[in-house]
Parts: sequence; C-alpha cells; structure tokens
Amino acid sequence: MIPNVLAERYASSALQAIWSAEGRIVLEREFWIAVMKAQRDLGLDIPEEAIVAYEQVKNQVDTASIMQRERITRHDVKARIEEFNELAGHEHVHKGMTSRDLTENVEQLQVFRSLQIIRDKSVATLVRFSKRAAQWADLVITARTHNVAAQPTTFGKRLAMFGEEMLSAHAAVQDLVDRYPVRGLKGAVGTQMDPLSLFEGDASKVAELEKRVVAHLGMPALWTNVGQVYPRSLDFRVVAALTDLASGPSSFAKTLRLMAGHETASEGFAPGQTGSSAMPHKMNSRSCERVNGFHVILKGHLAMAGGLAGDQWNEGDVSCSVVRRVMLPDAFFATDGLFETLLTILDQMDAYPAVIAKENAHYLPFLMTTTIMMEAVKAGVGRETAHKAIKEHAVATVNDLRTGKVTTNNLIERLVGDDRIPLSADQLTTLVQAGERNAGAAQAQIQAFVGTIAELAERHPQAAQYTPGSIL
Amino acid sequence: MIPNVLAERYASSALQAIWSAEGRIVLEREFWIAVMKAQRDLGLDIPEEAIVAYEQVKNQVDTASIMQRERITRHDVKARIEEFNELAGHEHVHKGMTSRDLTENVEQLQVFRSLQIIRDKSVATLVRFSKRAAQWADLVITARTHNVAAQPTTFGKRLAMFGEEMLSAHAAVQDLVDRYPVRGLKGAVGTQMDPLSLFEGDASKVAELEKRVVAHLGMPALWTNVGQVYPRSLDFRVVAALTDLASGPSSFAKTLRLMAGHETASEGFAPGQTGSSAMPHKMNSRSCERVNGFHVILKGHLAMAGGLAGDQWNEGDVSCSVVRRVMLPDAFFATDGLFETLLTILDQMDAYPAVIAKENAHYLPFLMTTTIMMEAVKAGVGRETAHKAIKEHAVATVNDLRTGKVTTNNLIERLVGDDRIPLSADQLTTLVQAGERNAGAAQAQIQAFVGTIAELAERHPQAAQYTPGSIL
Amino acid sequence: MIPNVLAERYASSALQAIWSAEGRIVLEREFWIAVMKAQRDLGLDIPEEAIVAYEQVKNQVDTASIMQRERITRHDVKARIEEFNELAGHEHVHKGMTSRDLTENVEQLQVFRSLQIIRDKSVATLVRFSKRAAQWADLVITARTHNVAAQPTTFGKRLAMFGEEMLSAHAAVQDLVDRYPVRGLKGAVGTQMDPLSLFEGDASKVAELEKRVVAHLGMPALWTNVGQVYPRSLDFRVVAALTDLASGPSSFAKTLRLMAGHETASEGFAPGQTGSSAMPHKMNSRSCERVNGFHVILKGHLAMAGGLAGDQWNEGDVSCSVVRRVMLPDAFFATDGLFETLLTILDQMDAYPAVIAKENAHYLPFLMTTTIMMEAVKAGVGRETAHKAIKEHAVATVNDLRTGKVTTNNLIERLVGDDRIPLSADQLTTLVQAGERNAGAAQAQIQAFVGTIAELAERHPQAAQYTPGSIL
Amino acid sequence: MIPNVLAERYASSALQAIWSAEGRIVLEREFWIAVMKAQRDLGLDIPEEAIVAYEQVKNQVDTASIMQRERITRHDVKARIEEFNELAGHEHVHKGMTSRDLTENVEQLQVFRSLQIIRDKSVATLVRFSKRAAQWADLVITARTHNVAAQPTTFGKRLAMFGEEMLSAHAAVQDLVDRYPVRGLKGAVGTQMDPLSLFEGDASKVAELEKRVVAHLGMPALWTNVGQVYPRSLDFRVVAALTDLASGPSSFAKTLRLMAGHETASEGFAPGQTGSSAMPHKMNSRSCERVNGFHVILKGHLAMAGGLAGDQWNEGDVSCSVVRRVMLPDAFFATDGLFETLLTILDQMDAYPAVIAKENAHYLPFLMTTTIMMEAVKAGVGRETAHKAIKEHAVATVNDLRTGKVTTNNLIERLVGDDRIPLSADQLTTLVQAGERNAGAAQAQIQAFVGTIAELAERHPQAAQYTPGSIL
Repeated sequence: MIPNVLAERYASSALQAIWSAEGRIVLEREFWIAVMKAQRDLGLDIPEEAIVAYEQVKNQVDTASIMQRERITRHDVKARIEEFNELAGHEHVHKGMTSRDLTENVEQLQVFRSLQIIRDKSVATLVRFSKRAAQWADLVITARTHNVAAQPTTFGKRLAMFGEEMLSAHAAVQDLVDRYPVRGLKGAVGTQMDPLSLFEGDASKVAELEKRVVAHLGMPALWTNVGQVYPRSLDFRVVAALTDLASGPSSFAKTLRLMAGHETASEGFAPGQTGSSAMPHKMNSRSCERVNGFHVILKGHLAMAGGLAGDQWNEGDVSCSVVRRVMLPDAFFATDGLFETLLTILDQMDAYPAVIAKENAHYLPFLMTTTIMMEAVKAGVGRETAHKAIKEHAVATVNDLRTGKVTTNNLIERLVGDDRIPLSADQLTTLVQAGERNAGAAQAQIQAFVGTIAELAERHPQAAQYTPGSIL
Repeated sequence: MIPNVLAERYASSALQAIWSAEGRIVLEREFWIAVMKAQRDLGLDIPEEAIVAYEQVKNQVDTASIMQRERITRHDVKARIEEFNELAGHEHVHKGMTSRDLTENVEQLQVFRSLQIIRDKSVATLVRFSKRAAQWADLVITARTHNVAAQPTTFGKRLAMFGEEMLSAHAAVQDLVDRYPVRGLKGAVGTQMDPLSLFEGDASKVAELEKRVVAHLGMPALWTNVGQVYPRSLDFRVVAALTDLASGPSSFAKTLRLMAGHETASEGFAPGQTGSSAMPHKMNSRSCERVNGFHVILKGHLAMAGGLAGDQWNEGDVSCSVVRRVMLPDAFFATDGLFETLLTILDQMDAYPAVIAKENAHYLPFLMTTTIMMEAVKAGVGRETAHKAIKEHAVATVNDLRTGKVTTNNLIERLVGDDRIPLSADQLTTLVQAGERNAGAAQAQIQAFVGTIAELAERHPQAAQYTPGSIL
Repeated sequence: MIPNVLAERYASSALQAIWSAEGRIVLEREFWIAVMKAQRDLGLDIPEEAIVAYEQVKNQVDTASIMQRERITRHDVKARIEEFNELAGHEHVHKGMTSRDLTENVEQLQVFRSLQIIRDKSVATLVRFSKRAAQWADLVITARTHNVAAQPTTFGKRLAMFGEEMLSAHAAVQDLVDRYPVRGLKGAVGTQMDPLSLFEGDASKVAELEKRVVAHLGMPALWTNVGQVYPRSLDFRVVAALTDLASGPSSFAKTLRLMAGHETASEGFAPGQTGSSAMPHKMNSRSCERVNGFHVILKGHLAMAGGLAGDQWNEGDVSCSVVRRVMLPDAFFATDGLFETLLTILDQMDAYPAVIAKENAHYLPFLMTTTIMMEAVKAGVGRETAHKAIKEHAVATVNDLRTGKVTTNNLIERLVGDDRIPLSADQLTTLVQAGERNAGAAQAQIQAFVGTIAELAERHPQAAQYTPGSIL
Repeated sequence: MIPNVLAERYASSALQAIWSAEGRIVLEREFWIAVMKAQRDLGLDIPEEAIVAYEQVKNQVDTASIMQRERITRHDVKARIEEFNELAGHEHVHKGMTSRDLTENVEQLQVFRSLQIIRDKSVATLVRFSKRAAQWADLVITARTHNVAAQPTTFGKRLAMFGEEMLSAHAAVQDLVDRYPVRGLKGAVGTQMDPLSLFEGDASKVAELEKRVVAHLGMPALWTNVGQVYPRSLDFRVVAALTDLASGPSSFAKTLRLMAGHETASEGFAPGQTGSSAMPHKMNSRSCERVNGFHVILKGHLAMAGGLAGDQWNEGDVSCSVVRRVMLPDAFFATDGLFETLLTILDQMDAYPAVIAKENAHYLPFLMTTTIMMEAVKAGVGRETAHKAIKEHAVATVNDLRTGKVTTNNLIERLVGDDRIPLSADQLTTLVQAGERNAGAAQAQIQAFVGTIAELAERHPQAAQYTPGSIL
C-alpha cells in the first residue's frame, strides 16, 4: 500500500490517530452512541441494553470487513451502520439521521481536535522562541535589510520578532477554536424534516437532542441555517489560519538558512551528529528547508480549500468530497510536521559569536557614519563638508574591499587621515565601539515578548512543556 | 493612461479616495503633522507656526511636481518630503524617522480604513439577506443536493443559509478590525535606534511619541518586535478574511445562476430594463457572474499575499514592494465591487412562484415516497412489500418521463392502481399536498437569522442603511 | 498505516506501481546497473559477474530492512546502496556518483513514465468524446449561454466542443513528452567534477557515459547546465500541463451536472444500478462531481509547484524535498483518477430525448424571433413595427409563464393574433419547426473533430482501446 | 483616475499600446474592416466607398464619446459600433456577427501580439545571459548547495545554469506562439448559424470568410468546435507559460540577492549612481527583489486563470469577464516589467573577484578533503586511517573558526602536523591550489550554452538587439 507520506514521515502519532480510518470509525460510533442516549432520554424507545452492547464493541474495528460491505452496498455509511449493528446485535443507530448528520459532525470533530493540538504546539513553540530570545538578548548582530548590513540589533530581538509574528497568528487560531461552529443534526437539506418526523413535530425535543449532541462533541458553537453540508468557507478559514500560523516560522527558517550561509548561526545538530562524511564541514539546514517546504504545501492546500469555498450549489453537493479527503488531513499533517521540525530546530540551534563579531567589525564603521557625521559637526566642521568627506571615504572603502586593494574595513583610518574630519583616532574608535553595544530598544522589546509568553504559558501549562518526537 | 480597471469600473468612490495617489499623500501629511505635534509636546524644538504652515498646505497635492522630484532624487519618500517642505516653507517633517516609519503606518491606515468600509458593507448586505429571507420565508421550493431534487425547503431558508455563512465570516472580519496592529515608529531595523537618538536615549519619550501616533491613526493595537517592516502574514490575514467574506456571496450568486437556468428566480433588472433587444426573453445573470468573478480574483490576490507571507529575510526586504502595490488596493477594490454588485442583486432579484410551483409539483410525489411507505405500513402492508412496490413505480415513472412515455409525474396514479399499496387516491393526494407545505424547521431557522441580523443592524445603524451606487 | 487516499481509492495500479516504494527501488537499481554496464564498457574495472549478481537480486526489495539501515546511517541513499550491495555480494554501484545523480534521474523517470500513461489515457478519452459526438451529432438541444437558452445546437456538438478543448491540451502534453529533458550525471554542483575524476579527466568518456545512461532511461533530451538539481520549473510545467489537460473534462463534467439538474442528460449508471434506495428517482452526478474535485486538487498541486519554481538558491537546495514527495505522485494520482472516472462517465452517460424535446419546444419560439422578424419584413411590414410587436409579445409571454398566467409558450398564437405581423399560423409554425432542425454548421464541425481523433487513434492504437477499471 | 500600477510604473510602451482602450478600439476597427472586405469579396453588398470611409476614420478614437453611448445603450459593443458608424457615415460593420465574434478575436490578438513581444524580450535576455556566462566563464566561485559551500564552479556556469532554465521555458513559449488558435467567426453559440444565414447557407463562403479573417489576424491556427467563447484553458496555458518563463529569472535574482549579502556580486548601479546617501556603502538589490515580486504576482494571475479554466457552463458564460479584464493585461504587464528589470540587471551587474577569492580561500581546504584522502591513500596510508584523521581535523577547524579560536582556515597546517597523513606542506598546498582552478566541465557546458544562444540570436536578429528602457 502507498502510504500518506505527510502522515508517515512527518506527523505525530496524535494527529495520525485522529485521521486514521480506525480512529474515525471510533469517533463515529461514539457519536451514534451519544445520539442514542439523547434520543432515549427524550422518549424514543431505545433499550439500555442496546446502548451497553454498542458501547462494548465500539473499539472493535475491522476495516476489511467494512470495506467488503461497502463493495456490496456501494454506500460507505450504510456499510459502517451494518457492521456496527451486527457487532452489537442491535439495530438502533442512525435513527432519524441522514449520512451527512453523521459524517459532517465527525469530520468537524476531527478538524476541531486537530486544531486544538496545533494550538497547543504553537504554545510550545512560542515558549521556545521566548527562551531563545532571552538567551541571546544581548548578542549584538548586524541587522540586515534587503539582505545587506543596515544597523545593529541583537539575535534575541530577531527571534522575538519572528516569535511575535507567530504570536499574532496564534491568537487568530485561538479565536477560531473558541467559536468553531458544528453543523449538528439538520437532516438531508438542512430543514430538520427527518428529526422532526422522528419526534412527531416536537421542535423542542429536536432542539434538545441537538444541544446534547453538541455537548458530546465539545464544540463551542452550532450553525442554524445550513443545507446538506456546513459551509466550506469554514474549511477555508481553518486552512488559512494554519497557513498564517506557519508564516512566522517560515520567515524564521529562511533567515536561519541565510545565517547558516554566513556561518553566524545554524539549526544545529542532534548530540553526537556531525556533517556529511564526505564533507565533514558541511552542515546543511535540512530542517529549516523542510519548514519552508511545509509552508509551500500548506499554500497548495489553501488553494484547494479556496476552490471549494464559494462553490456551493443549492443546498450542497459533494464536488468537495475527494478534495476534503485529501486537503483536511494533509493540511493538519503538514502543520504538525512543521511544528515537530520547528521545535527540534529551536531546541538544537546554535549561534557562533566569533563569526558574528567578525561580521560586526567588518560593517560597524559603515553603520556608524551618521553618528560620526553628527559628532564632526559638533566639533565645528560644516555639515556639507563632513558629509562629503565621509561619503568619499566610505565609497572608496567599499570599492577597495571589493577589488581587494584592502582586506579589512579601514574607513576609520582614512577618516583619521583626513583633515576635514576634526576627530582623533581615539574619538572615532570610541564611537564605533559604542555602536557595537547599541541595539536601541531591543532588550526592552524582548522583555515585553518574554512577559507575554510567560502569561500564555501559564494559561496552557501542559502545552508549554510539550517535547517534540524524534524527526527524520 | 491605462486605468486600474477594478477601481474605475467597479469600486466605490470611498475606496478610490483611500487608495488614490492624492489620498495617500494627504494621509502621509496628516501622519507627519501628528508626529510633529507629539514631538513638540515631548520637547523637540518644532515651532507652532511651522505646524500651522504644514496644516494649511496639506491638501495642495501636485503629483506631477512630486514625480519630477522623484526622477531626480530616485527616492520616492524624499521627493514627497521636499515637496511638502517647500509648500510649507519649513523643514521639520520626518525627524528621527526612516522611510518605513512613514510608509508602513500609512499603508496600514489605508488597509484599516478599507477594512472598516468593507465591514460596513457586509452589514448592509446581511440586512438585505435577512429582509429577503423573511419575505420568502414560506415560499416552498424544491431543495436540491447534487443539483438534483431532494426535499422541500423554502426560498427564505436558502437565502438565510447563504446569509449565515456570510455572517460567520463577517464576525471574523470584525475581529480583525478589533485587533489590527500597526507597526509604529520603530526605525530602520525595528530597534527604535533613531527615535531614541532623537530623544537622547529617553525611552519613555519614545514610547509616549508612539502612543500618540497610534492614537492619531486610530488603530487598536501596536506591534512591539518588528523589523524594517511589519510581518506580511498580516496582509495575508486581511486578504484571506476578504476571500472568506466573499464566499457566502459567491455560493449565493452561483445558486441564483442555477435558478435562473430553471427560471425559478433571477437577479432581476433595474426598473424599466428588459432583456437583450435581439432576444427579449433572455435575462442573463451578469451581475451574479460578476460576483463569482470577483471571488476568483480575490483568490489570485490571496496567492500573491501567500507568496509574501513567510518569505521575510532577516529584518526585511522589499521583494514585497511591487506585489503589495498591486495586491492591497486591488483586493479591496474587488471586494468593494463585489459588495456593490451583490447589494444591487439583493435589491433587484425576483422569484417566480408559478415556475416554482410547477417544479414542486413535478418532484413532490418522489420526495414523499418515504412518507407514503410509512403510511402504507401503518395501514397494514409489510414494509418490504411496500418498499418494493414504491421503488418499482418510482423508477418506472422516472424512465417514462425521460423517454417521453408520460409527460407529467403520475406516480400517485400508479400507486393507486397497485393493490399492494392499501391507500386511496384521496389519502395519497393528501399526503403529497401536505408535503408541499412542510419545510421542517425552515421558518424557525429563518426567524433566528432575522433576529441576529436585527441586533447587528442596531449596533451598526448607519452601515445597515447603506445604498449601493449604480453599477455598470 | 494511513494510506495515500488518491493512490488507494482512485489511481490505477499502473500509476501506483511507478510511485510505490518498491517500484522506485527497482527503478534505482536498474539505473545503477545501466551505469555500471556503461562504466565497464568505458574501461572501469567492474567485473561481469558483479553485474550479473546485481541483476539477479534487483527485484528483491525489502523496505523494512532498508528503513532499518536508514535509521542508523541517517542517509536514505546510503541505506539503499548498502542493501543492494549486500544482496549482490559486491560493492560496485554508485561509483563517481552523488546522491542526486541517482535520485534526480529516477524521479524524472517516474515523471516521464507517468506522463506517458496520462497521455495514453487522454487518447482513450478523446476517442470516447469522438464516439459520443458522432452518436448524438443530430440530437438538437437548446444551447445556453449565461446558463440561459440562446440558440439551437446539438448534443454531439457540445461534446465535440469539450473534446476539442481537451485535444488542444493533449497536444501540449505530447510536446512535453517529446522533449522532456533529464538531468543526467552532473555531480554534486553540476560541473561533473566527480565523473571527470573517475575517468581521469577524459571528457569524452564522461559524455559517452551520460549518453548511454540517457538511452537507458529512454528520455528524449538532456540538460547541459544544471546545478545539484534540475530546474524545478520543469516540475511546474508538468503539473501545469496536467491541470490544462483536466480543464476540458472539468467543463464537460460541470455541464453534465447542469444537464442532470434539467434531466436532459446524466452520467448514467452501471448496468443494474439504480438511484438511492430512500429516493429511487435520485441519480446524483457523483462521478462528475469527482472530476471537478480532481481539478481543484490539481490546482492545489500547481500552487505547490509554483512555490518551488523560481526559488532555487545558488546550485540548489532541498527546500523542495518534502513538497515534491507530496506533489509529484499526488498530481499524477489525481490526474489518473480523473481519467478513470471520466472514461467511466463517457461509457455510461445517457441523454433523455423526451426531456430535451420538451425544453426545445419551450424555448424555440423565443429563439426564432429574429428569423420571424426577417420574414415579416419580407412580407411587407416595416422593420421597426415588426420589432416592436415581437418584443411586446415576447416579454409578455415570458412574464405570463413566470407568473403562471400561461403554462406553455404561446408566443406564436399571440403573433398570429396581431395584425402587425403579416404571417399566418402555418407560416409561423413552419418557421419554428425549421429552427428545431437547424444547428448551423454543428454537424460539419463534429465531422472534423471525429476525423482528427480517428487519425490520433491510428497513431496510438493501443491507447485508443484502453478500458478503465471499476471505480468506487 | 487611479492608474494601473503595473502598466504605468513597469511595463513598456509597446505593451501599453496593445492593451490601452484606444489601442483596442483600433484593433477592433481593423478587424471589422477586414471582415467587410472579405464579405464584399464573397458577394455581400458592401460599397467600396464605405470601406474607404471606415478606413479613414479608424484612428479617430474618442473614448469619452463611446462611454457616453454605453451609458445609454448599456451595451459596450453596441456603443462602439454606433460610434464607428457615425464617424464613417455608413452602417456596414458587424454584419452577421455577434459581440463575441468581435471581442474574442480581438482579445486573442492582444494576447498573441503580447506573447510575441515577450518571446522577443526573452531572446534579448538569453543573449545577455550568454554574454555574461562567457565573460565570467573562468571566474571560479564556491558553489553552494543548501546555501553552504560545496564544490568549486565558475560564475559563468552559474549564469549559464539559470540561462538554460529560461531557454527551456522560452522554447515552450515559442511552441505556444507557433500554434496559438483563434476562435474565428462562430456565432452566438459556436454553430455559425448567423454567418450561414448571411450567406444563405453557403458553408464554403463562411469557411472562406473565416479563413481570410484569420489571415488578417495573422494567427497560426483556428478552433473548429467552440461555443460562445474559446476555451479558457487557453488563457491558463498562456499565463502558465509566462510564469514558467519567469522562473529561471526569479531563481537568478534570488541568487544574486544572496551573493549581494556576501558581497561577491551585485546587481550594480547605473553609471554615476552610488548607494543611499545616509549609508553610502549600502547597495540594495532592489531590482532583483522586484523580479521576485513580479514572479509572485504572476502566480496570483495564474490562480485567477486556473479559476476560469474548467469552469465553463454549457456553451459559455461570462463569469470570466471581470477576471480576464484584470488578469490578461496585468499578467503581460508584469512579465514585461520583469524583463525590462532583468535586462537592466544583466547589463549593470558586477562581480567582486577579491571577495570571491577570499571566500574560495576560506572554503577550499574543506572542498578538497576527498582529493587529499585519495592522494594520502596513494602515498601508502590506509583509507580508514586517512579518513579518520581528516575528519577530526576538519571538524576541529570548523569549530575553532566558529568559536574564534582561529581566524583563518588552517586545516592544511593541521594535516601537515599529523603523522597519519604522509603528505608534505608543499604537496598539500599544491593540491588545494589545483582545486581552485578546477571547475570540472563548467567551461565546456558554458560553451554549449553560448553556441545555442548564438543560433537563437541568428533566428531573431532584431529581438537579440533589444535594449530596455530606463527603469524606476
């Protein structure tokens, strides 16, 4: 059998369990049992012993037997009803229900539970971003815009930046969890005609039945006006939220790949691991690349979800059926794989202060030119004169470095030797060295992030302590 | 000049004003003035007369003059600074700011104001869905799943269904508006080094400055840890929310196109308008098709937004620049055009009860077969016998209708003539006629929707009364 | 294990075999053997008995054993080398090769062979479109634009239209097959440094080796300047071609779903099958919906492919790795599933002449208004007068039909009763009846399509006779 | 008026002319004139003086006047007919035609001519890739995989690699141009009922008319079986080909951005230009970022095109109308802007040999470890011993460089000092220096590329010499 590669290679067992054939069948049976209990309480004739019998066999899942039934009936839900009935020795499940009363609710339960797991892993990830940001809060690095050296910042600030991006998306996911609406028992076209028939038109009983079923599912909200299916824009919203949540991590992974190219940082290795045997120096950012790959995959799933949203005909159709079979589990497997990988990166990553210091030293004279100019003006030279002198020397230094005339940034020496700049070698060196420690408000910003995450972790103590499995 | 077709043909003037070159320049100037006022209050030497001078000229926008400056400086922000300074006769704007301190905040303001307009139009749309749902609450139609007749529902329920889908997305847009975070004054790489220099390291003044600027912008939240730019996943979230919001309308439009094909309903015409002169009977669903077209466009913009999210290098770059110039205004123009069109459709649409009744009559005997079977069983016949008899006649009726042997659905006559079914012609006819009025809980569901929208309209009284402009 | 749902439920065994773990390992081993044979012929010391030994064990695939090796080496290619060597009792494979010299070529072979299978199935599909177009060449139906009745056409013409769309995409796929370029043996960064070392700098031997390897693979072209990997825009081109090829079928499926809603045609049933047992009249277009679903899925895969194209860093990276593991097999599984489904639809579909005739009768008077006007003018009335009269009556007829005042289209009666139209009832009836048989050049167009497909079938006789497997 | 930003800021005047309102109107009028001439030759009564009159006024385009007419007629084509008729003083245009007979063909002409311009610019681009590849054929750089140093290559080879990727897509675009099929005069639903009426059923005249019209348009092929519109999968194919063509350039731009981060190369500056005045050293890759931005935009347009392909209902609808108004011109504007930018980059880019040499020196000892091992084995030491020694020293060197214990790569010194490696300092240095000049088959591969492009340039001499306009 050809396996689902996202599930088998990358996703955690918790996600696999939710979306496996076996897992789904158990969810369905639990759903039927919850419906029967509520129906019995509301007056339908469903014997207690039948419910007990169903409960006793609900975990006996034989997918081969069910598939054999499906080949005969050519109807998947009917096959699963028959199997469950035969195991229990009763015929009480699925009363007053259509197939979609079962499948829509159970699929939404799969989505909802998966969302909760992902939400929890995003908490664990934010805790790590916070920890790393605090660890490297004072490690000054050369910030880059357009991939070119711009001003000093700290490595901790860079991590807090990606962390805060993800935190913003995390809040949106939390919102989605807090108000995720389930379809409920609405009948073949959404009018509840069949459950109403079952209770001989008693609308209050139908409402109570639905209320109990939603309570069983544990979802926070309920649709009122739907058709055969719940609106597919809800699936779109879910996949968009996952894509959003993966965006901060993706930018972080890309930046770490860039830093690895400069050897200022790397995603690290598992203890004991070294580079490839042929090239022992070579430490590829395989895991970061994988994070970026998952993000690309999610955008593909989002395109699929977008292809279903807004394409409902009348009370519904199933042109979405094959798409949702692929997109829903796979989007969660990809997101889960992304977080397993990302947590591992955050645990194993490393920074290389010596290389960072070398880079800082190389660029710092350039980064300090505006400060030098201001000091020169204070010392009495005209602004235009100072600007002209500094620009001449800066451009000359860049060119000489690139053509090899000089091998280290000697801008300061040049300025010392220029009479137009009335600052001594000592003064200039002091200015540049001060720059090396000045990352503005970086530390305070990091502190704010660390504080916010500490509160989040308090609200989700178990999630905060999650440890990823071993990745390939 | 080649116009922006989405702006010119479809968007309202309110949206055009926000995104026009002139509108943006005024927003920038107002932003600069707000910054100057705060800087002055916090102790910087900015004379009151300068601020007055800037305020007096802020609406004097000469884009040609600015473009001429840009051709010389090759720097768009610098060109706009020089123009504003020259008009005012002062040089106090943009102190301690980098270009992105201006442009990011102003672009976010454009996004935020556009979001508010769209939010308001979605309220106006929901009010119309509610009105139409109430109007046709009792008009029974043949619900379709898989585009095939399934069970009775009402036209009002169908409209409430699409309305409730949109309501769910509306709530997500409202959330976004309620917590939309602005970048603020963070300097070249996000560390606030430059504003800190300006206030000689006084962090509290920098914080106060930023607080006042955010208050001027009127946005509800502020990023702390950012780089040169705010995270592009926020743009993605915005475009995803617009796409989501357009999904219910898109399904509605598609369904109305289907109904027009059956002549059970149409998007209607403006008063006095008729069909094409060559074919006067032909009433094309041009506006509904346009709604579907806008949805396709939005998904393209979402792909663009997805191409930027998660692709930030270090503290930021502008590989996003050209993309955002296209995607941000165009996504709002498309959404705005969609709502202008949709509001018009909801105002002008019509249903055709005679054709609907004919369709109901055609399908009702089929839709009632399960009820007939139950009654036959009550009347004493075995369940299997009844099922077999009904199925034989139903299939035969379908086939005869399709091959032309019969021209109307005569299933009831066939059942009357079959001894296995112990029900009289009167009894059967009564059953079928009852079915025609039985739309289950449809009316109650509609009522719930109408109530919710009434509350929403109370919270947004002005938005609820919005009337669309004339569409092409 | 969680299966790949596209492979397991929808794709044919031929596609599954190409992309299974076992199938791939055999392809790799055959590739290594081809390389060894060429290396031996070009002078490397590789004993004949070793090659024989490798050939004898090449089909002994034990994926569990390989996975156990991978867990130790943490290198998938190394694990497969060791397994093959141990099975054969020799160590001659993979000489002068890097991992990508193996994996890129084998993956391209999987793509190439899959493309050929899809190309063949598209031939089989076109043959069916041709057959159905010929069968219904003269069955006049009411053509619709904007989903509204427009002019007569024939059902055969409608099928030829979708067939010709697909034929155009088929030609593009054939082009792709005809010039698909393989990466070849290019070494770690594309410079062939390692194979050149192996042959001590003899470039002619390296070229000859590569030539033989390409001949073994059977691919028509070879890249010269590549890096570690072949350009991912080639994958994009493949998935775009598949999406293109699926577009005609998708439009056809959507149109058949629309026709099913009017009961003018349906996708039919397998012999002996009827509708759902609860609603025996209900024949859902499940297979057509599935075709549309596959098209949505493909567009998601295209978004994934687009996320890799144009994102190569330097000589290559593997941020594409996880994406290609998902996208490449799944895009082919989806396309294959689409064609299996489509072939079944084309074999089982049916048209319902009685319903079609009823629809024609309903609309024909409207469709003939321009002709009637021309004849009225010939008979002496002024053009403006005739136009005014006809328009009045047409609009009134439409309105009366929709409000239920009349139940059949009585436009002709109305015209007969209007003195402004100097045509008798007989004349008018004759005009309308002539219209019912006038589908313009439809038959000639169909004939052209049938002829083209006949030539295509002659060029691909085996493909033309392909019969799909049984679908779920 | 809000301008189309892609047209106004980035596209060339040639593209703007094709897609401007005025340009389109002239194309339409030329089309009508071509139709009239053919109709006259085939026997219709169209006086020569009328045709002359139309030709004389065809360039008098007054869009305001036309818009005023459209506001009255509410029909855009009718407005343009009336305007043209009034200008000419005759009423002979549009005989036997429906709106789509005009608009589809003219839009296809816009697409076709745009494709030719893009094809030509891709030739000009390839010529520059070839020139640069030849110029830097021998400039050895450190090739990177996973963004990490891997083996030597040359800068010329890297450029040839991206060039060859683009060449492959160029061939696909050329194919598309060579077989691009136009819809022709097919009437309202594709059956040619109206042109057949015009020629009283004479099919040969209709065929001849269409043949002449296609000859006028200059397109290479003609659809036979279409509906109201040509299949939208053809638009999809076009946008996919543009996206494909932009992929090699996008990878090149991304790589140049990476190189700029290492200062080994840059996109350069216009003569006289320097970096930003505040930071004179800072040379941002703005143009390369823009190329990547255009690629993102194109993928958005592709999503739009994909939203139309496969969504045709019956003989056609115009849910595509608003989408195509945006997508078609904008995809060409974006592609054109991309090539204008790319040509400028290729003309102005620069490499920095001193920085490159420093990088090579830093990595070369690592890159040569496999060669050193082979030589050590030849000199008598056991393979395992040599491997162990080298690996120890390589890992230690990497770690010492990263922690700052050493500042230059001293692997060779370490190996010299290790008795297990029986090679002298001279021998080792010689080995490493040889590596610096060994880029395998890079030069030969470049030569092949240069030769192919020379042939291409011969076939397109004018295109090869195209010079881009000045970019912003």
